[in-house]
Amino acid sequence: MAEKGLIVSVSGPSGVGKGTVLKRVAEMIEEKWPGKAAYSISATTRSPRPGETDGVEYHFRTKEEFEEMIEAGEIIEYDQYVGNYYGTPAAPIAAKVSEGKVVFCDITIEGSLALDRKFPDDVVTIMLLPPSYQELEARLKGRGTEDDAKVAARLAKAREEIARAGEFEYAVQNNEVEQAAQDIMKIIESEMLRTFRQKETIKNLE
Amino acid sequence: MAEKGLIVSVSGPSGVGKGTVLKRVAEMIEEKWPGKAAYSISATTRSPRPGETDGVEYHFRTKEEFEEMIEAGEIIEYDQYVGNYYGTPAAPIAAKVSEGKVVFCDITIEGSLALDRKFPDDVVTIMLLPPSYQELEARLKGRGTEDDAKVAARLAKAREEIARAGEFEYAVQNNEVEQAAQDIMKIIESEMLRTFRQKETIKNLE
Repeated sequence: MAEKGLIVSVSGPSGVGKGTVLKRVAEMIEEKWPGKAAYSISATTRSPRPGETDGVEYHFRTKEEFEEMIEAGEIIEYDQYVGNYYGTPAAPIAAKVSEGKVVFCDITIEGSLALDRKFPDDVVTIMLLPPSYQELEARLKGRGTEDDAKVAARLAKAREEIARAGEFEYAVQNNEVEQAAQDIMKIIESEMLRTFRQKETIKNLE
Repeated sequence: MAEKGLIVSVSGPSGVGKGTVLKRVAEMIEEKWPGKAAYSISATTRSPRPGETDGVEYHFRTKEEFEEMIEAGEIIEYDQYVGNYYGTPAAPIAAKVSEGKVVFCDITIEGSLALDRKFPDDVVTIMLLPPSYQELEARLKGRGTEDDAKVAARLAKAREEIARAGEFEYAVQNNEVEQAAQDIMKIIESEMLRTFRQKETIKNLE
């Protein structure tokens, strides 16, 4: 395995199955390189709930700390929800990559591109695609949590997002979880074979 | 599989096992995508031998034709041997790629980089590395065809070539034929997942 890790940034429309596919890829990484899979952990200003630990579920920060991090360009992307900030901090990701980990980020399109600008040598951007819009609609309806108007709005947004696929390095169709996870594994293993990630290997031929 | 093919350009020091590894990769391609593996065929000004067919063993050309092809930038790289030209013509490679084939080129470093300049969107450059210089020396000696001085000269050249690995996109260590072939397969499959090679797939989500 290459000396340095990798940030695997996956975006895609709501309902495409990012969480399920990434969970399976993380299992595959653990099988192949035990201890190497890691997730990006969000920072938030909300209070920890009982049983939550700083740095596990979230990085818990005060409002002042969070705003300083935004100011310093330390937050890749953030949003506010019920008066609290939620965001993706850069430093913990950088730390994991330098330990050689494969860090998964389930992130918006803008977040993915911002991550790529922040760590150009370490990020692989992947857009996860549905088999078809029809199938995406069926999946969204299958959740049973949203009315037709909301499903239609999500589908319209999906079309806008997929129109931006060209801004991503790779596109993987999620026809089936196992196939999509294998495709992402191939991308990760192939990226590990890039010459600029194997400087030590090449030096050690001596 | 992506709509367009790919040129897989593999360079590496003498004795590293390019031919054997590429043969195994071509078998793997044939298993996965029957009819998709192809080789770059050299052009030459030497006369066909009995049983040789134009476009199979070589593209047989007259000296005038070959020199016109050089003039027109149609020859990626060439050399002269016993009064005849031998070279890699671009057009047959381009034709195979547009048919969706994976075209293997076993080529010098300069040839690989020239190919990449000629077809920047279609070429993947890979340097095949030995497990170590010691092992490369053992393999060269094992051939039994060269004396110590020639082996030493080949090793010196190998060091020069490997020092240029950074000019290649990928580096694959040939510790074992099957592993090296699988690594190259992962690179090919991963390259097929690049968004710019999947424009049709993305359009066809409708």
